[in-house]
Amino acid sequence: MPQILDGKAVAAALTEDLKKQTAALVSRGVVPTLAIVRVGERGDDLAYERGAIKRAQTAGVAVKQFILPADCTQPQLLETIDAINHDAGIHGCLIFMPLPGSIDERAVRERLSPAKDVDGITFASQAAVYAGRDEGFPPCTPAACMEILKFYGVDPKGKNAVVLGRSLVIGRPAAMMLLGASATVTVCHTKTRDTASIARRADILVAAVGHAGAVTPEFVTPSQIVLDVGINVNEAGKLCGDVLPEAAEIAGACTPVPGGVGSVTTTVLMKHVVEAAEKQSGINN
Amino acid sequence: MPQILDGKAVAAALTEDLKKQTAALVSRGVVPTLAIVRVGERGDDLAYERGAIKRAQTAGVAVKQFILPADCTQPQLLETIDAINHDAGIHGCLIFMPLPGSIDERAVRERLSPAKDVDGITFASQAAVYAGRDEGFPPCTPAACMEILKFYGVDPKGKNAVVLGRSLVIGRPAAMMLLGASATVTVCHTKTRDTASIARRADILVAAVGHAGAVTPEFVTPSQIVLDVGINVNEAGKLCGDVLPEAAEIAGACTPVPGGVGSVTTTVLMKHVVEAAEKQSGINN
Repeated sequence: MPQILDGKAVAAALTEDLKKQTAALVSRGVVPTLAIVRVGERGDDLAYERGAIKRAQTAGVAVKQFILPADCTQPQLLETIDAINHDAGIHGCLIFMPLPGSIDERAVRERLSPAKDVDGITFASQAAVYAGRDEGFPPCTPAACMEILKFYGVDPKGKNAVVLGRSLVIGRPAAMMLLGASATVTVCHTKTRDTASIARRADILVAAVGHAGAVTPEFVTPSQIVLDVGINVNEAGKLCGDVLPEAAEIAGACTPVPGGVGSVTTTVLMKHVVEAAEKQSGINN
Repeated sequence: MPQILDGKAVAAALTEDLKKQTAALVSRGVVPTLAIVRVGERGDDLAYERGAIKRAQTAGVAVKQFILPADCTQPQLLETIDAINHDAGIHGCLIFMPLPGSIDERAVRERLSPAKDVDGITFASQAAVYAGRDEGFPPCTPAACMEILKFYGVDPKGKNAVVLGRSLVIGRPAAMMLLGASATVTVCHTKTRDTASIARRADILVAAVGHAGAVTPEFVTPSQIVLDVGINVNEAGKLCGDVLPEAAEIAGACTPVPGGVGSVTTTVLMKHVVEAAEKQSGINN
């Protein structure tokens, strides 16, 4: 049986640290504040927003919502971003993506001040993740993977890490963050030949394929730590990851779905807001 | 004996294409023009500059030199960059790095207009390489590696590529460009365990370690294509790559040093200038 890497425990520990940091900021007159920009009323966005607001309250982060109608115009949205950029009382900003097709998403991303880009969507944040510079903010999901490894005392240095998936939201940044932590990193994807045998060489396996059952027992060994980033719905209509239960059972340690990586992402978002507030106010705990 | 991947042949073929493109641009009143910004008189810079000017002449690219004294100030250098940004007659800009210690190199990099960043030094270019977006410009050395593969008909898709080195100038961009071309990519570095056995699994091995003899026969197999990016001086005072001659002999194909990757980089720089001129003038050949 694998060790269960409990995302809720990681989030709880991070939140305790954040409470101290936010208290210290508040005592000096700074309330770390997150702007949430949502266009329309998509169910996924609303669910994530509720989770984020709850987590923010627990951590001591204030939230300001900027809600625009689904048929809002590009100038309206850019004006909203400008207002957030110029508001010294807002330290970080989350913009729900994808935006409606009528909006130039890239223009919106790049309008956001990199200093407030707590979800890692600007070129400056992307370049920092790529370069391994400790500035800007990485996307929250791969950052959550790194927090889980840290919490459980796993140092990636010198370990073989295999990342399944090359998306800009998870696969690529996870690979660059593991590389920055001195793992030897291999990135696999749909064009990879014999992915299972490459995966078996991993000490740390990050599954970010995006479909249920992608990781079968052939991918996994008992010495592995498996981080299952997938959030899928299986044939029975149940939430599940990329890793088959019978594959997870083989691993040395594995994150469950739900209750694994996904349980840490909103906490990482709050961590980024607090870091942004510290940087912008010049207060360092 | 390995097939010799001749950088000069690659450069010659690219230059022939460039001549046609520059002629087409010139016939429509646009002379593709590269600005070279050099601070001081460092020998390495002067040598590269001479090579670049010669290559530019052959390809039909004009060069404007901006030479500042080694003790120039930050505002002087930034003014120079601004002048280049605002000059519609200049399409690309090469700035020699590293800059003197008194200069904020990052501020200088980011001052350059991304549209003119033909050497891939701005965040926008870095983010584009990282994201695999076909915009901005990658650094010239990894781009030269990709041109060599293309010239010799090697499609990285589905192949195992191993990159030795994780620098921002070569290792990381080479990894991202190979990933963009759908290779399965592994990045090794000083903290990697048993690098030789990982290297042996490569179909394409990129050696960007930066010291002579780093790649020994244990790294290489007869089915491999080896791209030797190293430019070192060995004990006998002779120019050599990262790959030992007895290792290169084992490979299926290998770039020599000199006459390999290094012979293609200035041509790639000119290719980027021509592409920049096409984009900025709206003329597409």
